[in-house]
Amino acid sequence: MPRYALLIEYHGAPFAGWQRQKDHPSVQAAVEAALRRLEPDCPGIGAAGRTDAGVHATGQVAHCDMAKDWDPFRLSEALNHHLKPAPVAILKAARVAEDWHARFSALERRYTFRLVSRRAPLVHDAGLAWRVGHALDPDAMQAGADRLLGRHDFTTFRSTMCQADSPVKTLDEARVESFELSHGREFRFHFRARSFLHNQVRSFVGTLERVGAGAWTPEDVTTALAARDRAACGPVCPPEGLYLTGVGYPEDPFATPAAT
Amino acid sequence: MPRYALLIEYHGAPFAGWQRQKDHPSVQAAVEAALRRLEPDCPGIGAAGRTDAGVHATGQVAHCDMAKDWDPFRLSEALNHHLKPAPVAILKAARVAEDWHARFSALERRYTFRLVSRRAPLVHDAGLAWRVGHALDPDAMQAGADRLLGRHDFTTFRSTMCQADSPVKTLDEARVESFELSHGREFRFHFRARSFLHNQVRSFVGTLERVGAGAWTPEDVTTALAARDRAACGPVCPPEGLYLTGVGYPEDPFATPAAT
Repeated sequence: MPRYALLIEYHGAPFAGWQRQKDHPSVQAAVEAALRRLEPDCPGIGAAGRTDAGVHATGQVAHCDMAKDWDPFRLSEALNHHLKPAPVAILKAARVAEDWHARFSALERRYTFRLVSRRAPLVHDAGLAWRVGHALDPDAMQAGADRLLGRHDFTTFRSTMCQADSPVKTLDEARVESFELSHGREFRFHFRARSFLHNQVRSFVGTLERVGAGAWTPEDVTTALAARDRAACGPVCPPEGLYLTGVGYPEDPFATPAAT
Repeated sequence: MPRYALLIEYHGAPFAGWQRQKDHPSVQAAVEAALRRLEPDCPGIGAAGRTDAGVHATGQVAHCDMAKDWDPFRLSEALNHHLKPAPVAILKAARVAEDWHARFSALERRYTFRLVSRRAPLVHDAGLAWRVGHALDPDAMQAGADRLLGRHDFTTFRSTMCQADSPVKTLDEARVESFELSHGREFRFHFRARSFLHNQVRSFVGTLERVGAGAWTPEDVTTALAARDRAACGPVCPPEGLYLTGVGYPEDPFATPAAT
């Protein structure tokens, strides 16, 4: 059966997360339903990152096995047709080797968290960013983020529900971008690692926000990390600012030029 | 009665437009209802631009007369509290002279239209931009936009419902910005004039999109303008990409520093 990689964008709000669940809408079930409109016996799909309820993606990757030999562009167009009106879009489809695996072939995951500091409630960005009503210091947040880089036992920044075998992970990037909006200021936290623990990014950002607000020092981040104790973590921030932005593979399956 | 200028942001989708209408939700009615939670006898308000159904604002300006002497920051906070959950936010309030008028004191209006070119349906930008599935040439669109600059009889680009006394207006800016997205390309059309005719910006963008797609030449824009005939206009584009971004006054009433 020919295998295809799918590059998927979605709005997290209406879903209980990526993963199929009994009695709850999921992105996985939405994509599988669209695939079965094309091929009723299409098997289930797997994705590179199991995003939580309310978390967005602009670069989720999954693979599917089809009976028919689909032109990748036509496959993405047909899936987008059947996905309507769910806020899920197939950005690209690509033919991959039959042993290629969206999850196991992945070398890294990239997440971005959007945080907006302004007094007024969000209007156009409602549900797309986390708003706080006070000022934040980007340099302090970057100094705090620097303390998280490298290989550590991240028990402090891991949900007690996390099912990963080990809390030891290597964080390869933790970058705080900051720019002025016409009203307020936006901060984007960019994280990159081979893999992440459950709630790790939201635990990072909730903690770094405390640093930005001046309630924590960057050194407090090191202390919290060293504690290897969930209770030492700052508040976990809400999901609506979090985006899975990309997945890295030894070779980019979507590198061949496609229609924009 | 002390008069206040309000800087207002809103999402156009749930509203039949800015202006109060019997039996239809409007932004004006939402703001007036919030004002009357503060002062039950608060008179009605007027705005600088009467945006249509579905059109957004990031910089609408209105004024209101209050019985009480409100601290402007507290006024904006109280209004935002009462506006929830409507997608309307007061970005700033400012005390102005009693003869200052949001509409009649205005020297210019600024609009931006967001157009995204990509194959996949929009997800996070759904309702916030107009999507077309084909490529567009930004240089051709700018060349077409240049033909619209200056003082003209804009009958071609004016709704037949337009109630303005004269179709003659002066367009001071028509700038096409273009940038790559991670998937697709975004075009922003920036227009600036003392005032606009009904549907003028959407008529401009619908016509310029045809130029960008290669169906029209920039010279065809000049021909259409010279025709002074509504039938010579390109298709009018949908409202969801249009934003009233700002209003210019002899002195900016919001220039005093405020909380972000």
